[in-house]
Amino acid sequence: MKKERVFIDPFKDLGYAKVDLHREKRKGFPEVIFCEGKTETQIAGIARKIYRYNKSVLCTRVSPQLARALRARYPHGTYHKDARIFHIGRIPKGAGRVCVLSGGTADIPVAEEAAWTAEIMGSTVERMYDVGVAGIHRLLAFRKDIEKARVLIVVAGMDGVLASVVGGLFSKPIIAVPTSIGYGLSLKGITPLLTMLNSCAPGVAVVNIDNGFGAGYIAAIINRL
Amino acid sequence: MKKERVFIDPFKDLGYAKVDLHREKRKGFPEVIFCEGKTETQIAGIARKIYRYNKSVLCTRVSPQLARALRARYPHGTYHKDARIFHIGRIPKGAGRVCVLSGGTADIPVAEEAAWTAEIMGSTVERMYDVGVAGIHRLLAFRKDIEKARVLIVVAGMDGVLASVVGGLFSKPIIAVPTSIGYGLSLKGITPLLTMLNSCAPGVAVVNIDNGFGAGYIAAIINRL
Amino acid sequence: MKKERVFIDPFKDLGYAKVDLHREKRKGFPEVIFCEGKTETQIAGIARKIYRYNKSVLCTRVSPQLARALRARYPHGTYHKDARIFHIGRIPKGAGRVCVLSGGTADIPVAEEAAWTAEIMGSTVERMYDVGVAGIHRLLAFRKDIEKARVLIVVAGMDGVLASVVGGLFSKPIIAVPTSIGYGLSLKGITPLLTMLNSCAPGVAVVNIDNGFGAGYIAAIINRL
Amino acid sequence: MKKERVFIDPFKDLGYAKVDLHREKRKGFPEVIFCEGKTETQIAGIARKIYRYNKSVLCTRVSPQLARALRARYPHGTYHKDARIFHIGRIPKGAGRVCVLSGGTADIPVAEEAAWTAEIMGSTVERMYDVGVAGIHRLLAFRKDIEKARVLIVVAGMDGVLASVVGGLFSKPIIAVPTSIGYGLSLKGITPLLTMLNSCAPGVAVVNIDNGFGAGYIAAIINRL
Amino acid sequence: MKKERVFIDPFKDLGYAKVDLHREKRKGFPEVIFCEGKTETQIAGIARKIYRYNKSVLCTRVSPQLARALRARYPHGTYHKDARIFHIGRIPKGAGRVCVLSGGTADIPVAEEAAWTAEIMGSTVERMYDVGVAGIHRLLAFRKDIEKARVLIVVAGMDGVLASVVGGLFSKPIIAVPTSIGYGLSLKGITPLLTMLNSCAPGVAVVNIDNGFGAGYIAAIINRL
Amino acid sequence: MKKERVFIDPFKDLGYAKVDLHREKRKGFPEVIFCEGKTETQIAGIARKIYRYNKSVLCTRVSPQLARALRARYPHGTYHKDARIFHIGRIPKGAGRVCVLSGGTADIPVAEEAAWTAEIMGSTVERMYDVGVAGIHRLLAFRKDIEKARVLIVVAGMDGVLASVVGGLFSKPIIAVPTSIGYGLSLKGITPLLTMLNSCAPGVAVVNIDNGFGAGYIAAIINRL
Amino acid sequence: MKKERVFIDPFKDLGYAKVDLHREKRKGFPEVIFCEGKTETQIAGIARKIYRYNKSVLCTRVSPQLARALRARYPHGTYHKDARIFHIGRIPKGAGRVCVLSGGTADIPVAEEAAWTAEIMGSTVERMYDVGVAGIHRLLAFRKDIEKARVLIVVAGMDGVLASVVGGLFSKPIIAVPTSIGYGLSLKGITPLLTMLNSCAPGVAVVNIDNGFGAGYIAAIINRL
Amino acid sequence: MKKERVFIDPFKDLGYAKVDLHREKRKGFPEVIFCEGKTETQIAGIARKIYRYNKSVLCTRVSPQLARALRARYPHGTYHKDARIFHIGRIPKGAGRVCVLSGGTADIPVAEEAAWTAEIMGSTVERMYDVGVAGIHRLLAFRKDIEKARVLIVVAGMDGVLASVVGGLFSKPIIAVPTSIGYGLSLKGITPLLTMLNSCAPGVAVVNIDNGFGAGYIAAIINRL
Repeated sequence: MKKERVFIDPFKDLGYAKVDLHREKRKGFPEVIFCEGKTETQIAGIARKIYRYNKSVLCTRVSPQLARALRARYPHGTYHKDARIFHIGRIPKGAGRVCVLSGGTADIPVAEEAAWTAEIMGSTVERMYDVGVAGIHRLLAFRKDIEKARVLIVVAGMDGVLASVVGGLFSKPIIAVPTSIGYGLSLKGITPLLTMLNSCAPGVAVVNIDNGFGAGYIAAIINRL
Repeated sequence: MKKERVFIDPFKDLGYAKVDLHREKRKGFPEVIFCEGKTETQIAGIARKIYRYNKSVLCTRVSPQLARALRARYPHGTYHKDARIFHIGRIPKGAGRVCVLSGGTADIPVAEEAAWTAEIMGSTVERMYDVGVAGIHRLLAFRKDIEKARVLIVVAGMDGVLASVVGGLFSKPIIAVPTSIGYGLSLKGITPLLTMLNSCAPGVAVVNIDNGFGAGYIAAIINRL
Repeated sequence: MKKERVFIDPFKDLGYAKVDLHREKRKGFPEVIFCEGKTETQIAGIARKIYRYNKSVLCTRVSPQLARALRARYPHGTYHKDARIFHIGRIPKGAGRVCVLSGGTADIPVAEEAAWTAEIMGSTVERMYDVGVAGIHRLLAFRKDIEKARVLIVVAGMDGVLASVVGGLFSKPIIAVPTSIGYGLSLKGITPLLTMLNSCAPGVAVVNIDNGFGAGYIAAIINRL
Repeated sequence: MKKERVFIDPFKDLGYAKVDLHREKRKGFPEVIFCEGKTETQIAGIARKIYRYNKSVLCTRVSPQLARALRARYPHGTYHKDARIFHIGRIPKGAGRVCVLSGGTADIPVAEEAAWTAEIMGSTVERMYDVGVAGIHRLLAFRKDIEKARVLIVVAGMDGVLASVVGGLFSKPIIAVPTSIGYGLSLKGITPLLTMLNSCAPGVAVVNIDNGFGAGYIAAIINRL
Repeated sequence: MKKERVFIDPFKDLGYAKVDLHREKRKGFPEVIFCEGKTETQIAGIARKIYRYNKSVLCTRVSPQLARALRARYPHGTYHKDARIFHIGRIPKGAGRVCVLSGGTADIPVAEEAAWTAEIMGSTVERMYDVGVAGIHRLLAFRKDIEKARVLIVVAGMDGVLASVVGGLFSKPIIAVPTSIGYGLSLKGITPLLTMLNSCAPGVAVVNIDNGFGAGYIAAIINRL
Repeated sequence: MKKERVFIDPFKDLGYAKVDLHREKRKGFPEVIFCEGKTETQIAGIARKIYRYNKSVLCTRVSPQLARALRARYPHGTYHKDARIFHIGRIPKGAGRVCVLSGGTADIPVAEEAAWTAEIMGSTVERMYDVGVAGIHRLLAFRKDIEKARVLIVVAGMDGVLASVVGGLFSKPIIAVPTSIGYGLSLKGITPLLTMLNSCAPGVAVVNIDNGFGAGYIAAIINRL
Repeated sequence: MKKERVFIDPFKDLGYAKVDLHREKRKGFPEVIFCEGKTETQIAGIARKIYRYNKSVLCTRVSPQLARALRARYPHGTYHKDARIFHIGRIPKGAGRVCVLSGGTADIPVAEEAAWTAEIMGSTVERMYDVGVAGIHRLLAFRKDIEKARVLIVVAGMDGVLASVVGGLFSKPIIAVPTSIGYGLSLKGITPLLTMLNSCAPGVAVVNIDNGFGAGYIAAIINRL
Repeated sequence: MKKERVFIDPFKDLGYAKVDLHREKRKGFPEVIFCEGKTETQIAGIARKIYRYNKSVLCTRVSPQLARALRARYPHGTYHKDARIFHIGRIPKGAGRVCVLSGGTADIPVAEEAAWTAEIMGSTVERMYDVGVAGIHRLLAFRKDIEKARVLIVVAGMDGVLASVVGGLFSKPIIAVPTSIGYGLSLKGITPLLTMLNSCAPGVAVVNIDNGFGAGYIAAIINRL
């Protein structure tokens, strides 16, 4: 019985980490390593265990320096620099299409984290950057392309209004990602987060500030349904 | 061409409201009336227009008094009291299954708003209330039932931890709804919202505090994919 | 010399108020009575002094009960109920056109306060309510009318995105008024205020939450330039 | 018809940016490049497109290093160091007078950003710095000069009271800019922002913290009316 | 030896209160009863003990209903209705002059609490209400009167700028009291509090929102020096 | 094996509640009913199940009206009015002594909730109310009594300093409870909470605002060790 | 008499510090040196006094550089690098068992501070790191080990839900420590703090963000009871 | 007439600053230069003007580097390094005694700023550092010394409780200065500020976080009365 197995199956105890080897069984995707706040040694140790069992490792928030260290150990791994993602392993076939929209140019790193996460989890990804409402015709020009996607990810900082506008135009589920881009009262992403949570257009749900990974992840699992 | 039609098609201008008659075409569901802050006369006027074109009206945040007034005009309408929803029209056939979980008993009104919204939009809904982590075996006892759903809605106030725990156990997309239930530092729902947005388990996206409608809506459109 | 006169000219000291009889000379409009937090006796006393000198009194935040009391004293005064404004005196000729847009129906009381303030100060006012971005074609349908105005006032609660969208489309100065309409994380107007202050589109300046009067006032003085 | 043209006219898609070539047509001024958070390559790419179409480029938040790089490409461009503005192109003739007041010496960079933006957009600008209320006679001494302006910009940090005092003395529209100057409870500009939004004197509207550009922009378009 | 005595001297234990009978010895004034949150029985019990030992009782935040109950027991007590103060006992001779200024009419209840507290503690009090900066000549007209005081109390809500302006003009210590008067972003007094704490003019110290009593108290003990 | 049993043992599903019948086994005390936000019918239903299995029911936040309804069903139950607690069942023998201190008289309801919770869970409780630092000799006078307790509970609103002072004087674990008593910047209990969490004296841990129950509970389980 | 002695006994006045030599007598443990914000000279001076009287010094928040300087003076001292603790002196015998749990790997420095503080104060400590709810079976696997402890310390950042889950499973007192680990809306530890304070499971009390020392301290004194 | 003179007397306009030469006449002390945010050139220019007219210059927030530059120009100036104050000119004779108390060692820089400001303005200053309530006998030991002062300044970070305790023991006016010392929920000084503003003991007024200068200034002008 599945339930029992979860409780009796192993995980790997490294002292500083208890690597969850059943994550893929429960969640459909192996444990992902969030690298900020962990030492290089810890990351390497965790990656080794996950790689042994799952043949696939996804590391996020990877600095260029850390990427070099990981590349030395896993030469077949790929570093997506803009996205700060290091990935080892095969990418499954496209399960559906996700469209990632960004309000501005400075939001691209977060948008790329979302895009690569969704791709690595099997989605086909369309990128559409700098379509904020200061020039709304840029968004309207891509309506047909956007409607081809099954899930939309909207990444925006400052006023965060792109999510509401997209929500008013399209019938697909929208995952909104506020970014910490801005100054003064953008409050390091709190303002676009609040805007997105108050969207007058329905069909919008929100993830943490700068959490491109989280948006790509939920978009991918929606896409797999 | 679809795009053109959106811009040339009419909406109905009532002065106090411009009823969006193209909402269903764009979003797949007619305009929904959020009743708080509107007068009974305004609500009746808007409902009349929507009903004429769409034969289906969904009103949220409906007080018992307002429900009586609406019932007088639309005797075939139904008032879901716990959910504070008044609905007129046919419900489409079930498009898939949504499971609505609540942390406690006091969260039920918000959970019911989510459940009824999803049902009215065509989902089959399973309700699982009062399964908070103070007694986690209650949640674990329902694992098989929960895994039958395509989308999970988690409604919780106070510490809001149910979303993270559900996120750790299931592979389905989770829409989390913080509620304003609690006292002191639950900060009228801000605390469970923050908890949910910081969920260590991936696959969770969040809507506004007490926004059962928004959760039911996005769950239903995910379900339709 | 003008400067001297300001300092030597009288004001009227009522003990509980020092009625500023030079306000019109300095600011171009007599002192306005903000009625919340003042007793009926105090309001009547202040109004009497202003009326004697300026033959024109503008009272804001006037409850229906207070309006009845004022009407008893000034039968030629007018109560604009939606706007909660009581006005005594002649209205100067139209100095230019202001367009007042609201995101939703529930924002109308604040929008009306702005509209009547601008009218009483001499502007011609065009009202355009419920043109929020959940159905952006409603806004686009009125583009030509909006472009006739010299100043735009945008009144919105919840996500407050209407100001950014209007800012992206029009070249006129925009005064944005956040409203306390909403629930949960609209934070009684703080969220739309933050959105408006972070507008990616330039040309937007903001007044206090629910401050329809302030928006109408500055729009009117811009209009007079 | 103007409306149609906006939707059919081009913008330039650079991948990382969709340069809005219709901005001048809609807003009366070309797209402005906010440089923080963009790479030098991105800024250069965007500037090239704008310059080709509009023969005029305004870059804000330009560091000295970035200015050197821009100067290398556009030797006829000018760097206003205090204002952190780089400008290429002709400045239109003065459309009216703006007076920029600052509370203190440390507010000058933001004030200069406002002043140069207004100048580049065609206004004649009068600067009046360090006239805060700790020595209110400094402000009163310049009353006649201030009254010559059509629009006033008030830049202040710390307690931000200058806007209210100016609002009490002059009949012109006032655009208030809070600055992040200060320490402790000035809360990086939130305190002067709150003060300005609560100004007891009417005629004041507010832009984001440190947003000298936004203040100069709206002052200039008011001035053009 | 004084120190010892404090620790051995009695206080009266009523169970719900331990009435501090040494307060006058240590602080120069008997314990004051803050009535909000206490029952009538508790207040009466505490008042009885203080009166027996000190022949003087000061009660603050006294509702009209509570005042009637206290008057029934202490017919020689006085209720200062605006100030919500009930006082029993003799008032010492004037120790010096305090000037209480208020920004507006609605601030008067707090200003009166400050004024009566200072009077009851022996100061001569000058009241100067509604002298806010929307009409700064009202303040300047009273400069000579204000300079006669040894301590100034400035009571203001909304933007709270009166404290800074007074601080720029006078050399006396200033106790600033923010009030909860206002709406929207006055944040129930937090905004004037922040303004006052950031006063660019030195010589200003601040007490809690609406704490007229605290301001009157410290002004009176400064006056006694 | 204990672990297994938790997962297979029953709970009672009432639809609106899943009554946790294993709570006592896991936590050493049966499920407690927090009554705010639940209907009388729900409370009665939950109480019936708990009573059947545990012969002991503790209800918190019980209004006088609800108490009457519970008394009608459980005549042998006791209502502790100040504490807003209704209790049915036997109280175990004293496991050790807890001392509950309050800063002021208005904190007594929260202090009583803590005191009765600890008593019902088997502790001997000493109450010491109104010993705030405005008259610190009151606290010092009871030092010997306080030192007899094994655990101290400190209940305080406003500035919340009592916890730090008690923490500086005694070697016992201190559970601090901030209360929402106060006005202005006491921020409904946030200020004493912050003070308590920053206590310079070690040995202090904190529970939610007004959470007398939580403090009594943890004090009682510490006492049982 | 003990009370007297506290007041007459000496402390050592170094000008920049008044070293509390009676701390051990009152609190059962000598004064602890919190090193952040103090100069090396000050720390050395304070340590010398404490060491002379108590033969035991505990320094927290010790940087590697400071540790080297302390080691030079006290070669028999030990630096626990992860915990940032420097300790000189004997460790008393184990008074009972504390279990320190952490949600993730990045929480280890705070967890180690708690663990070493408890050990140095005489507790036996069991460490159980990275048992967060993203893989709840890791926690459940250690249930028997955890139940051997008398006190539990739960250290967690991000969503902080581990405290609630542990609170639902165990009957021991739980001291929860929020950490500043996380990004975006974890708000540098405020979010896990709020989650922990709102724990639906009773038996949880909370200390300041990153305050591993405070948690270890109170756990140790509970353990000694 | 004094009033006139204020308005006609000169100030010195340097473009970047309008040096207030009448400050001493109005406020009893020349303009003070707050150096943060000003360039060395600006500071030197302002100092030169003040020195020429007043023969006395007080600069605050002076870094060691800036101090060297000032010393080069004014060899007879003195740099108080701990206080970050540079002073040129004679110090008037002692006008009365101020006692500056600090809660801890790390608060000393702010305390020294207060102490030196008061000294330079003519007060005799007694310093009493590290007398926080973790060891309250340290404070009680100095009661007689403290009672000799006319004004008390209390400087404290973290929980900020020293102000309340001092307020409970002494009858003198207390100026409380919160410091940004602390971590986690001390919120960079906001927590001690809130504590101080809510002091249950009367006689306490508060200045901005880390504003030692402001506390010393008002203490000195109280002392001169």
